[in-house]
Parts: sequence; C-alpha cells; structure tokens
Amino acid sequence: MPSPLHCKPLRVGLLGFGVVGSGTCAVLSGNRATITARAGCAIDLTHVATRTPERARAAGAAGVVLTDDPLALARHPDIDVVVEAMGGTDLARRCVLAAIAAGKHVVTANKALLAQHGEEVFAAAQAQGVSVAFEGAVAVSIPIVKALREGLVANEIEWLAGIVNGTSNYVLTQMRDEGRSYAQALGEAQALGYAEADPSLDVDGGDAAHKLALLAAMAFGGAPRLADVHVEGIRHLQACDFGHAARLGHTVKLLAVARREGEQIQLRVHPALVPSAALLARVDGSMNGILVKGNAAGVTMYCGAGAGSRETASAVVADLVDIARALRGGGSPRQIPALGFHHEVQPVRTAAPLEALRLPQYLRVPLADAGAARQVREVLAAHGITPVQQDESPQALALLTSETEEWRAAGAVQDLARQPCVAAPPTRLRVEALA
Amino acid sequence: MPSPLHCKPLRVGLLGFGVVGSGTCAVLSGNRATITARAGCAIDLTHVATRTPERARAAGAAGVVLTDDPLALARHPDIDVVVEAMGGTDLARRCVLAAIAAGKHVVTANKALLAQHGEEVFAAAQAQGVSVAFEGAVAVSIPIVKALREGLVANEIEWLAGIVNGTSNYVLTQMRDEGRSYAQALGEAQALGYAEADPSLDVDGGDAAHKLALLAAMAFGGAPRLADVHVEGIRHLQACDFGHAARLGHTVKLLAVARREGEQIQLRVHPALVPSAALLARVDGSMNGILVKGNAAGVTMYCGAGAGSRETASAVVADLVDIARALRGGGSPRQIPALGFHHEVQPVRTAAPLEALRLPQYLRVPLADAGAARQVREVLAAHGITPVQQDESPQALALLTSETEEWRAAGAVQDLARQPCVAAPPTRLRVEALA
Repeated sequence: MPSPLHCKPLRVGLLGFGVVGSGTCAVLSGNRATITARAGCAIDLTHVATRTPERARAAGAAGVVLTDDPLALARHPDIDVVVEAMGGTDLARRCVLAAIAAGKHVVTANKALLAQHGEEVFAAAQAQGVSVAFEGAVAVSIPIVKALREGLVANEIEWLAGIVNGTSNYVLTQMRDEGRSYAQALGEAQALGYAEADPSLDVDGGDAAHKLALLAAMAFGGAPRLADVHVEGIRHLQACDFGHAARLGHTVKLLAVARREGEQIQLRVHPALVPSAALLARVDGSMNGILVKGNAAGVTMYCGAGAGSRETASAVVADLVDIARALRGGGSPRQIPALGFHHEVQPVRTAAPLEALRLPQYLRVPLADAGAARQVREVLAAHGITPVQQDESPQALALLTSETEEWRAAGAVQDLARQPCVAAPPTRLRVEALA
Repeated sequence: MPSPLHCKPLRVGLLGFGVVGSGTCAVLSGNRATITARAGCAIDLTHVATRTPERARAAGAAGVVLTDDPLALARHPDIDVVVEAMGGTDLARRCVLAAIAAGKHVVTANKALLAQHGEEVFAAAQAQGVSVAFEGAVAVSIPIVKALREGLVANEIEWLAGIVNGTSNYVLTQMRDEGRSYAQALGEAQALGYAEADPSLDVDGGDAAHKLALLAAMAFGGAPRLADVHVEGIRHLQACDFGHAARLGHTVKLLAVARREGEQIQLRVHPALVPSAALLARVDGSMNGILVKGNAAGVTMYCGAGAGSRETASAVVADLVDIARALRGGGSPRQIPALGFHHEVQPVRTAAPLEALRLPQYLRVPLADAGAARQVREVLAAHGITPVQQDESPQALALLTSETEEWRAAGAVQDLARQPCVAAPPTRLRVEALA
C-alpha cells in the first residue's frame, strides 16, 4: 500500500456550519493524524458554505474557502464529497441532488430529508454511481447503520425496537426519576438546550418516525416509508404513570418499533411499558438505545449519546473515511448500497394495519369514588378484558392486561370514559416485552 | 450495477465443521436469498475440510466437495475465500498461512490464533494483498470489530471495557442471582454446554485476554500484544462477595479493560466491581457487552449473545459479504486494514505497569472474632487506607476504599492475612467506575 503521503487527500465541502457542521470541522482537525492513519489518506475540509462565515473562521475553519452559496458549493469542481449539514428538507434536498448530479458523493445527517425524499435521493445517487451515506442521521454516534447494512447482513431481521429520540427520553427520565410533570421536564430540557423552543418534532414522535423509516428500510428492504409509520407522542403522559408502571415491574419509554409479521411490517412510534429488568429500561436521560433481533445473531443492542455536535460528527467522519478507503482501494463507495440491498428479495412488504396489533396493555383509569374500581373491572370484563396485574391507588386503578387486540382495548377505553365511576379519560399504553 | 445473476459468486472453502463451521453452512443456505441481495452476488460454500464428512453431509452440506485435508483445501485453486473454523493454533496457523500464500482471503473466528500469531498472519496477508477478517473472533454476533475499525474511526479511543467471555459471565450471574458457589455454578454451566470439560481458558481469563489483545490493537494501533495483558480469573470469588457488593451498590463482573494513559496502555482482565446502575452490570448470563469511550462519540455500548453456532456464523458471513462487496465493486477487501490502521500514528505505545494502577478497591476480610473489625480498620489505617463504605457481617468486613495504589492495597492485604484477628486470607477486587 502506498504511504498516505503519496495518496490523494479526499476534498470535502461542507454545507452548513451549525451543530453538525462545526462538530465535523472540529473532529476532522482535532483527530487529523489518527483519521489519516485509518483512512489511508488525509481528509481535507476545503470549502464551507455558511451564512455565518465569521463563526466558521473563529471555529478554526480558517484556510478553507468560505461561501454563502450552498448550491454553487454542491457543484464545485474541486470537491470530492459534499457533507450536507444544513438541516431542513427544501434547500437541503436541492443541494444534495445538485451534488449528486455533479458526481459528488454525499454524506448527510439529515433524517427528515432522507425519510421524506430518500427514494428520490437514493435513486439519483444510484443512477450517478455515487454514494449517499447517513450514519449520523439515525442514532448520532451509534454505528447502527453500519450494523444493519454490514454487521448483521447475514440475518433475516425479525424486529428492531429502539429509543431514538434523546429529547423525549430525557423528559421521560426526569418524569420517572424526579417526579416532574411533563411540562416541568420539558421546560428543563429546553433550558438545558436538549429541546427546541418548538419541541413538537421530538415529543410528538416525528423525529423518531424519520429514524424508524430509515432503520426499517435497512432491516427489511424497500425505500423509507414514513407515511406507513403510526406515530403517537408523549404529551399525555403523567408522572403517576411512571409510579404505577414501576410497581407493575415496568418503565415507560418512547419506542420506535419495526416488526416483520409474515409478509407485512409493523412500523410504529409510541410510548410503551418495557420490563424494568430489560437493558432498554436503563437507557436513560438523553441516551439512545436500539435492539435488533436477527435470525442468526439473536438480539444485539447498541447504545450511545442521543445528541451532540462531536457525537454526530463522529458518524459523519466515519462515512467520509468509508468513502476515502473505497476510493483509495480502487473500488467504488457504491459497493455497499445506501440501504444495504443491491436488489429486493421480494415484492416490497406492505405495512401491517395497526388494528392487527395484539399486545398486552397498560390502563390507568381515574376513579370517581371508593367503589369505582370494582365497576371498572366489570366494564373491562364486559369487553372480554381481564387484568393480569393491578396497582390501585385512591385516585386511579392501573392494570396490565394479557395480549389484547387494538380494537378491543380502544373500545374498552372509550366505554370507560363514558362511565360515571370514571373521573377522567383513562390512559392506555401498549406493553412491549422486547422479545 | 449488474444484476446478481450476472455477477460471479464468491466461492468459499470451509475448514472445520464444528460449532462455527456447521453454523456458517446453515446460515449461508438458510438466508441465501437475503445474503445474495445484500452482497450483490451469491456466496457459495463449495468445499469443506472435515474429519466428520457424514456429519457435514447430514447437515445439508451435500453438493459441496468434502475432504479431510485442510491444507490442500486452503490452497485449492477453485476457492476465493477460506473460512478457518478448526480452532487451535498449530494446524490452523499453517492452514491460514497456506491460504494467504495461495492468494486467498481468509475469514476466521479463532481468537487464540490471532492473539498469539496475529502479527505474523496480518503481515503475511498485507504482503500478499489479501484480507484477514475476524469479526467472529471477538464478540460473537456483536459487530464490535466493525464498530472499532470503521464506525468509530473518527475517534481517539480513550478506553474500552467489556464482558467478553460468556461462560464466566454465566457463572458469575448464577453466583449472584442464585447464591450458587463457584463450583456449583461452573458444574451447571458445564451441564448446559456453556463451559468446556476443562474450563480454564474461560474462568481464568485467557479467552478474554485473547479478545482484549485484538480489541486494543484496533483501538490504539500496533499488533495484538497478548503478553502485555495482565490476567486474573474468577476461581477465588465466593457467593458472599456478590451479597456484599450488592449492599455496597455494585456487582461483580469479569472485565477486559484497555485504557490509554498518556503514551502507555493498560491491558488487563480481572474480576471487578461495577456500579449496579451501570448498563454493563445488567449484561448477565452468557451475554457479552462492550463499552467504548471515544473523544468524539463519547461512550457507546454494544451487547449480544456471548456464544452460539449461528450467532458466530452471523459474524463470519458478514465478513464474507464485506469481501464479496469489495470485489464486486472493483476494489480490494484490503481497503479496510485488518486492524483498522494503514500506518501507525506514532511509535507503538508501551504497556503500563500494573503497579501504576490507581483504583478504588473492594476488600472482604474474614473476621476471627467480635472485635476483629476494629483491628482490621486500624491495620488499614496504618497503610493509609480509609474505607469510604462498609458492609459488616459477623463473618466478614467488606469495604470500598477511595482510589488506592496497587502496591498499597496489595501490601495491606498481605499484612491483614498475617493478623490473628483475620480468619482467612482477605479477598481484594478492583472497582471500575466505567467512566
């Protein structure tokens, strides 16, 4: 192998100098010697497109060409790879497609872009014979894309389940461990910079749905199918749900689940009870954790930071090194397909209707008076639901059911909400055994 | 990209048809359609060398050429890749070197071979321009080699710590959860097939040391340095140590630790107390779990099965797919160096002497009589050791110390063993905060 001194550097153009862009710049320069030794050639940040050039200069991006025109940079002849770190889905999409059209490889951590426009972007890249890498788009620094696309490539994936949104996990952890209300916990997360001023994308499950669409495409084939993901957020959870859950041997997490059911695939993001003894129950604060069940590997688990500038940059730079190594080896970075499949194994699987779901349920029913609990059990019995475990307080009856159909559980909750013995609308959460 | 129909299959020769070999055969045939779709070409098991051909035939290896001469198979002209699944370090070494000399790529799950002869094997492969892949040699189905060599490639690795031996972890878990003695727990592990008739390699830490030598080489550069690993096993642990540890907020695990200390590297395998709240404390039974701390990614964690035929095959086949994809892409599987570095960043780091270690300690001192605990504390004080936490029973005084030098802790234990107030030699374990 030639010494790296005789090897052409990989020339990187960076679009955006916010959290991800500045982290990428810092990691490339701070760890330069090690990255060069591992890649086999230098990875040079040569161009940056940003609206805040002074910020980029201050951050040590001196020596690179600065511009405020991302589209021009995306097509720049002196660049081998474009790193899209702008965020958003409109200008980012046009820049990524322009870079691909100009024959550039693309690295992005933009989950919204790929979940919504992945089919178009990946098709364009395939037609041009360039690579679109996105390790940073799914689980920050956890190399889960590499695990699914390469490490677990020998497996039929049966299911995957993960905590893939750090903000909502921080909120849920504060509610459980500090007894905070949802509003208090969210306020703290915003004060700490873990949550945006508008937290909707995080707490309503949208961000987790973007990531799940990408994970499922790598696990089962097909394009990312955001529209097929059933999404529920965490706004309706109350601190008391964590107490009930704990006494019932569980904790509440916002889960992203993709599960193969015959020729269909379940795609869902919702808060769920998981057994307290499960490793995933201990993935707390702003951490992310993902379980993958393969028919050869069994269950493997991946955990790491759920947010962060350098943490995301770790994944972005890993994608750059993959590209540098492939080019240096005389091959094509396209040797590994963006989503892991060179061709579909079979007609793309359809989404399983939520109605087909059959899981144990957690119900918390606010009680109007002393005798109410008995009446609640009678209503449930009338719907064919028998509690397998209960935790009663003067205010509420919380219980776990055996496996129950969605329609049956939803119907019982509607019926209960109408009963005089029930003081307020019940809360229903699904229970995931993670097995 | 050409359709897989027009793409040459990768021809695989398998040496050995035991646990790993039969699993590889089963996964390649059982998941063939998916593996082909992901690799971009078929991966065909064409030759098997085994002393039990009837077993191979029965296991569905019919249609492949069977031989009892592994050396001949290693050089066979009709094979692209040799999978070494024989185990052992003598014949396996000769077969692997023969395959390399014949220009074959090699995949192996043989940690002993690579830990002891890695420098020779990797050098031969580099000289021949072939690849030696070994995902299955470190953590069974967990893609930790890929994570260190590729996923975390942007990081300066600060430390890694893991449970990398499933047999000893099963024994420790039974001792903790079922109150078994070491001998009872080991007997059960043997009855279940988790432990060999001669369990030395597992319970004395040798197997974990093999894996640590490989992990450290990928994390810090240089060749695997088995001789530099300090190794202690678990035979001396008693069931009561788990009770004391639990009451002191910890659990006992056999850890493999590699930590960078300036220009030196600590390499050690020994039982240690880890905080009960740490995720690694929940990696139980025969599971493996590894933490890696990088200066960009922060701490990421990887867990999965610590043993198994199909589980190991998942990693072996992933290595085969890496090779198939690289060849199909027109490049060389050597584009990713076996240990992740194209060249050393700096002179290979030296091993840190154990004496330089400074960690909190757990001490269990068997007491001769009622007044003994006070005397024990006096002896410790004379050595400059003050307990920060204690758990006293009529039989023993268990305690945690603040950070203490090895020589100081060892000296105090020697001194205590000589005291009339001490009924039996004390037990000393290091405490790892995993931070």
